Amino acid sequence: MTAYINNPKEIEKRSFEIITEELGGKTFPPEIADIVKRVIHTTADFEYADLIEFKNNAVESGLKALEAGKKIYADTSMIKVAVNRKALADHQLEIVNYVHDEDVAKAAKERGVTRSTVGMEKALDDDSVGIFAIGNAPTALYKLIEFIKTGKAKPDLIVGAPIGFVGAAESKEALDELDALGVPYIRINGRKGGSPVVAAILNAMLYKLGRDW
Amino acid sequence: MTAYINNPKEIEKRSFEIITEELGGKTFPPEIADIVKRVIHTTADFEYADLIEFKNNAVESGLKALEAGKKIYADTSMIKVAVNRKALADHQLEIVNYVHDEDVAKAAKERGVTRSTVGMEKALDDDSVGIFAIGNAPTALYKLIEFIKTGKAKPDLIVGAPIGFVGAAESKEALDELDALGVPYIRINGRKGGSPVVAAILNAMLYKLGRDW
Repeated sequence: MTAYINNPKEIEKRSFEIITEELGGKTFPPEIADIVKRVIHTTADFEYADLIEFKNNAVESGLKALEAGKKIYADTSMIKVAVNRKALADHQLEIVNYVHDEDVAKAAKERGVTRSTVGMEKALDDDSVGIFAIGNAPTALYKLIEFIKTGKAKPDLIVGAPIGFVGAAESKEALDELDALGVPYIRINGRKGGSPVVAAILNAMLYKLGRDW
Repeated sequence: MTAYINNPKEIEKRSFEIITEELGGKTFPPEIADIVKRVIHTTADFEYADLIEFKNNAVESGLKALEAGKKIYADTSMIKVAVNRKALADHQLEIVNYVHDEDVAKAAKERGVTRSTVGMEKALDDDSVGIFAIGNAPTALYKLIEFIKTGKAKPDLIVGAPIGFVGAAESKEALDELDALGVPYIRINGRKGGSPVVAAILNAMLYKLGRDW
């Protein structure tokens, strides 16, 4: 058993086979199938096959951003530590999170808004950020949507997956307002989502660029 | 809406009310109810109410360990960043993870075993660790069980929640072997679990010591 368990590549391969098997007749276009399966792999929760939604050429646009070396902004430290650091390094990519920065904490306190809001504003100020990935804060997602609607931001990809019982689902529904603008997003409908789900989506995107085990 | 969303305490309170409501007739003893609900709060997944299991005075023993200032060992960085750092600081507690340490990586490579195994061994060498929390690696959980069965370790609490499709469920079933020894554990049965679930359990335990918002 030891040799078997010690080979993460084999374990992952077998896991994906099991997921494919259990999805049964539920199939997805090739460019999104690996993303859906990685989310299920991360959560052991098949409901995500029905909750995940891809809009406005999300995958294509996100990949182009990564190929162009654009940064990823994540709204939690958990996303940052859960994204494969080797895959990022191999492709000279960077993921940033500003929620715990001192200037962000200070401004949030002074203005009486969430650190997530101020962290998002800081990211929106940085043109090198192409992908905005939100697993926790509806306020961060609302701020992003506001900036886009007023023409102050045009992200390559949004991963919209705040989790929770109060306000999370509504913040994700608000992404509908971006359809008229053709803004690419990947969304988890309903209450579910969260940092591990966002990280799984980002990892699946990174592995599309090539993966060196 | 902004004022509402900006008050995390109110959001959490309302979330727990919704969870209690939707759990319906499914009730739990008071000492475990808040732990079960926090896991559901973290995952938006009510299935955890059926998957979580508490054995051998797990909560009581874990709380005693925290009150005595014992360390928590976590097998992932995600658990470490997801545990409330303020709550830890307020109670002068520490959570450690050794998987990314250089000496651990080196030893794992030389011996041909996982870094999770070597990280767990390093934690088992440290008498100040009382709680072992595993969200990812079946190998870490097996190593811990082996040390306990051979009398080399006697943890105050195990949180056994490796997630996955290959080997995870079996590693958690192996905790059964500790019942004869009366070792306290909290377990997530089946495939589900993972770092956010482990962090939710640990946070719920920490909040039992008192919570300063």
